[in-house]
Amino acid sequence: MRYLITGCFGFVGKYLVEAIQRAEPAAEIIAIDRAPAPASFPAVTRAHVLDLLDLALVSDVISREHPNRLVHLASLSSVGRSWQEPITSFTNNTNIFLNVLDCVRKHSPTTRVLSIGSSEQYGLVTESDLPLRETSPQRPLSPYAVARVAQEHLGEVYVRGYGLDIVATRSFNHLGAGQSSQFVISAIAKQFAELARGQRDRIRVGTTSVIRDFLDVRDVVAAYLALLARGTTGEVYNICNGRGLSIAEIIAMLADIAKVTPVIETDPELVRPVENAVVVGDHTKITTAVGWQPTIALETALRDVYDFWSRASF
Amino acid sequence: MRYLITGCFGFVGKYLVEAIQRAEPAAEIIAIDRAPAPASFPAVTRAHVLDLLDLALVSDVISREHPNRLVHLASLSSVGRSWQEPITSFTNNTNIFLNVLDCVRKHSPTTRVLSIGSSEQYGLVTESDLPLRETSPQRPLSPYAVARVAQEHLGEVYVRGYGLDIVATRSFNHLGAGQSSQFVISAIAKQFAELARGQRDRIRVGTTSVIRDFLDVRDVVAAYLALLARGTTGEVYNICNGRGLSIAEIIAMLADIAKVTPVIETDPELVRPVENAVVVGDHTKITTAVGWQPTIALETALRDVYDFWSRASF
Repeated sequence: MRYLITGCFGFVGKYLVEAIQRAEPAAEIIAIDRAPAPASFPAVTRAHVLDLLDLALVSDVISREHPNRLVHLASLSSVGRSWQEPITSFTNNTNIFLNVLDCVRKHSPTTRVLSIGSSEQYGLVTESDLPLRETSPQRPLSPYAVARVAQEHLGEVYVRGYGLDIVATRSFNHLGAGQSSQFVISAIAKQFAELARGQRDRIRVGTTSVIRDFLDVRDVVAAYLALLARGTTGEVYNICNGRGLSIAEIIAMLADIAKVTPVIETDPELVRPVENAVVVGDHTKITTAVGWQPTIALETALRDVYDFWSRASF
Repeated sequence: MRYLITGCFGFVGKYLVEAIQRAEPAAEIIAIDRAPAPASFPAVTRAHVLDLLDLALVSDVISREHPNRLVHLASLSSVGRSWQEPITSFTNNTNIFLNVLDCVRKHSPTTRVLSIGSSEQYGLVTESDLPLRETSPQRPLSPYAVARVAQEHLGEVYVRGYGLDIVATRSFNHLGAGQSSQFVISAIAKQFAELARGQRDRIRVGTTSVIRDFLDVRDVVAAYLALLARGTTGEVYNICNGRGLSIAEIIAMLADIAKVTPVIETDPELVRPVENAVVVGDHTKITTAVGWQPTIALETALRDVYDFWSRASF
């Protein structure tokens, strides 16, 4: 089996490559990324360093590689950054996906594509929508969310109109060792590690009342492989824990892990123009369809993230 | 009042400019278009010939012009072409709008923007959805429709997140003298004119059973001016006739007008990969909000289109 993974050298890519190599040691893994692999990255079969906005380069790689499976991880996935740079966010989500998809249509139409989406697509959530199912309405609230909805819609159109084989996800917040500190849990865990070392005296956060559904990245990539193997083309699946936690609860759990009593301060820079109060998903569809369910307790996941930052030198 | 109109030199732009000049002779009209004005186009205050994908040029024009009102007519609005060139269609709908919007945010945030959308956004329509209201679900079925949904979502996000003043439409099929023959009614009317002159012996069409809601372009631009004056920011309004007609019925009406009995032939090239069976809208929202309603009978509109092609030299 030949896998092509876009955005391969990022946080999720590393876990995905490791999972593929464990499950299928003979698999070929073709990486696409904007930057070369970091030193610690597992060896892959081939790597193409390119910008997915460059259609000619994408076309060239897909027509030469003809992957059996393509996992489109590449994304500028920060909601906060999408408010600061909406055009950059949009093109580096929707347009890169459209480029990839159109090259698959032209040059490798039997490739099975996994289109990674986001729980942010649900956007404005009312009490009666919770927990979110795949049939819940999408009312995107950020430039990032709009881009992800458009990506999913493009996937549907390519399945119906051109007969491509695409399975889509709406992946909820994930966490894990190695995640960038631009994401909320990683940012907070990093500050706890600094606090425990005496490198700072308080934790700065955005809105702590928001409730999110967090999943360990190892469970996320297990879901991706299960969907590639057994997901139904044209369908979209929530990938979530099914349980909501507020940022305040996460902070309390990290305080226990770090054995500190932090001073918490609101950083207005981290408060977003528009924010969903509660985002919690229902994973019945994927569990029924392919047997996947979360396996890693959030306490374990949080401890791993904290340990990562405790070991990190900064 | 200073108006900036993108895609100004197209079919709708001409009618919009005429309507503004009739209603408000002192208005300044700033045109943006990819190509210079055709010879027959009414005089405008200033014209900027540029590609809206060129962000630096868009930024320059919007920061210098500071329009009171911006009507974003620019669009590659052919559904058929969006299947042939999905990337070109998407960028020339969503990305051009995002460029315009982000320049308004940065350089002219009090400009009132009219974002033109399409009935194609509704996509897959079931019997129970009809007639389509603004609350009906959007299930886009073509690359063009996906791009229009993304455009509308971006508008909503810019209203909520950045406080811009944007009113959106979902404009149903329009028709009128001067419309390109890549659109169905214009294409058929042109063939009838050719038939009446003995320049062809049959009418070639796509799927004639599809039912659409057609509106005269003069009613369309009247709705645009009413919404600019009195529409509510952040809201979207159907602009439609409220009455559905099949392509077969349109053909029968044109046969009466042209006084011919045509041979009808299906052209497989004109049949789309995925097609909505019925698209009929409900204009209660705009009628209630701003008092607009259709005034021109479809028979009159069709006769004008037929007369246009009868007079045309080709």
